[in-house]
Amino acid sequence: MGGRALVQWEQNRDNAPRSLHVDLYTGGPAPEGGLEDVTFYQVPYAPSTQGVDERLDMIARMPELRVVQLVSAGYEQVLDLLPDHVTLCNGRGLHDASTAEHTLALILASQRDLPRWAIDQREHRWGSVPQRSLADSRVVIVGYGSIGQAIERRLLPFETEVVRVASRARPEEGVHGVDELPGLLPEADVVVLVTPLTERTRGLFGAEEFALLRDDALVVNVGRGAVMDTEALLAQNGRVRAALDVTDPEPLPVAHPLWDAPGVYLTPHVAGGSAAFYPRARAFMDGQLARWSAGEPLENVVRPGR
Amino acid sequence: MGGRALVQWEQNRDNAPRSLHVDLYTGGPAPEGGLEDVTFYQVPYAPSTQGVDERLDMIARMPELRVVQLVSAGYEQVLDLLPDHVTLCNGRGLHDASTAEHTLALILASQRDLPRWAIDQREHRWGSVPQRSLADSRVVIVGYGSIGQAIERRLLPFETEVVRVASRARPEEGVHGVDELPGLLPEADVVVLVTPLTERTRGLFGAEEFALLRDDALVVNVGRGAVMDTEALLAQNGRVRAALDVTDPEPLPVAHPLWDAPGVYLTPHVAGGSAAFYPRARAFMDGQLARWSAGEPLENVVRPGR
Repeated sequence: MGGRALVQWEQNRDNAPRSLHVDLYTGGPAPEGGLEDVTFYQVPYAPSTQGVDERLDMIARMPELRVVQLVSAGYEQVLDLLPDHVTLCNGRGLHDASTAEHTLALILASQRDLPRWAIDQREHRWGSVPQRSLADSRVVIVGYGSIGQAIERRLLPFETEVVRVASRARPEEGVHGVDELPGLLPEADVVVLVTPLTERTRGLFGAEEFALLRDDALVVNVGRGAVMDTEALLAQNGRVRAALDVTDPEPLPVAHPLWDAPGVYLTPHVAGGSAAFYPRARAFMDGQLARWSAGEPLENVVRPGR
Repeated sequence: MGGRALVQWEQNRDNAPRSLHVDLYTGGPAPEGGLEDVTFYQVPYAPSTQGVDERLDMIARMPELRVVQLVSAGYEQVLDLLPDHVTLCNGRGLHDASTAEHTLALILASQRDLPRWAIDQREHRWGSVPQRSLADSRVVIVGYGSIGQAIERRLLPFETEVVRVASRARPEEGVHGVDELPGLLPEADVVVLVTPLTERTRGLFGAEEFALLRDDALVVNVGRGAVMDTEALLAQNGRVRAALDVTDPEPLPVAHPLWDAPGVYLTPHVAGGSAAFYPRARAFMDGQLARWSAGEPLENVVRPGR
């Protein structure tokens, strides 16, 4: 396709077909060469942008725009900024390896007391206590999409059993519907929440679900904070444990009781953004630019232009 | 076989063939019924026994003894106590799942900054830094026996490449000899040491090996502390990172510089003894007693009786 593409990474500019005019834009003020002829815009990845966002404001100044490409999975913040004729693509799958890896890190940290050892090291204290294990655990994955599958692949060699749950049952894939959760939770050792936040998943895991869990079961949230009811977790007072990369509210206020809640381990929303993301995102962008240049259908279209 | 067996776990007593006389002995003073007719003795598992050890002293008072069964992998401490005609079996393999699991926990903790987040949580601090990942790493496993293989199985789904190293090359299995290590280390992201301590492995990983590693590479030791040269690690001063479940000396003295060394994460020799060990040890003992009772060859014989 004609016009000009803006991309974030040099690799993508250097690997693009010669027929495509590609410039770098990594954020901040609009790039040299202006915006008038930009047809394909990869919004630069900025995990923690707050407030006014030049990267998105620029969209209104691209009269020839045909495609906006995000490398995040979420895209709600962009929809209202796009004219109807612009196609929107997201970064579905690019964070899977990173998020699945962090999910295993959280589960292993909780089972093998890693936070305790970090504190003990700081205080020069050598001494062990009986250790839980992940082996022989039954792990219920709530949200069996591509990240859930990536988590499952990493879990199985640990000699675990995985139970798959999604919004709708898919019996041919052995996937339970979320309505079956009450029957599954009493047998779970670990529950992983990895669903997007929608009106159906908000508060999905609350007081009733916690009450169905065994003593010492572990709930891991790597989806969105509001999928789990924070107050319901606090009311467990250590009966059920939790490892949370996302919280509600987020960021967690300095005086929030979750910081010191017994059996709760927190990481600051770092699951998806590790170094694993970048090579996967660059490889995806190489392919996407090649498809765009050749007039082939793009991948990860979340809203086609009309 | 005749006589009487002493075992640690009720499951093994209850599952033993009726023809076998089995009593429980879990440690402490000699069991009721005396020791005169004991032919098979499973030494009770006690991970951290120090000084005089009743469990081992008892062996001298078992005139009919034919088999001593350990559930630890190490057995050097028992050899000198056994008459020549007594067969010694160890617990090889029973700790593999636990040790491999902790190895992954240490690697992920180091790559995903888990010790940092544990400290930050304690101080109510929410804020992230760019994260390494395990994905795309080349991991060199030094000691490719059953634990090394268990580590490899768990590593591969994380989208890693595993390089196998053992004391002798086994080309048909893709295993390098330890003499090839100098050529392998410059390309390694992570090195896992999981060898027993012998005169050949003592100090195996020292200043020369550290010098061959890339900046920010990670050395994980889950074997024995003295396989790695502590002073050589300290001299790295954070250029190479380490995650150590075993140290030299061990336990680590309160004023030792390793506690606060940059890029070093410590756990107190807890890899092998987690909850994963117990069901595997009990299942092994069920089988071992059935073999003994039927006069079949025992498994895990490390020194046959003559």
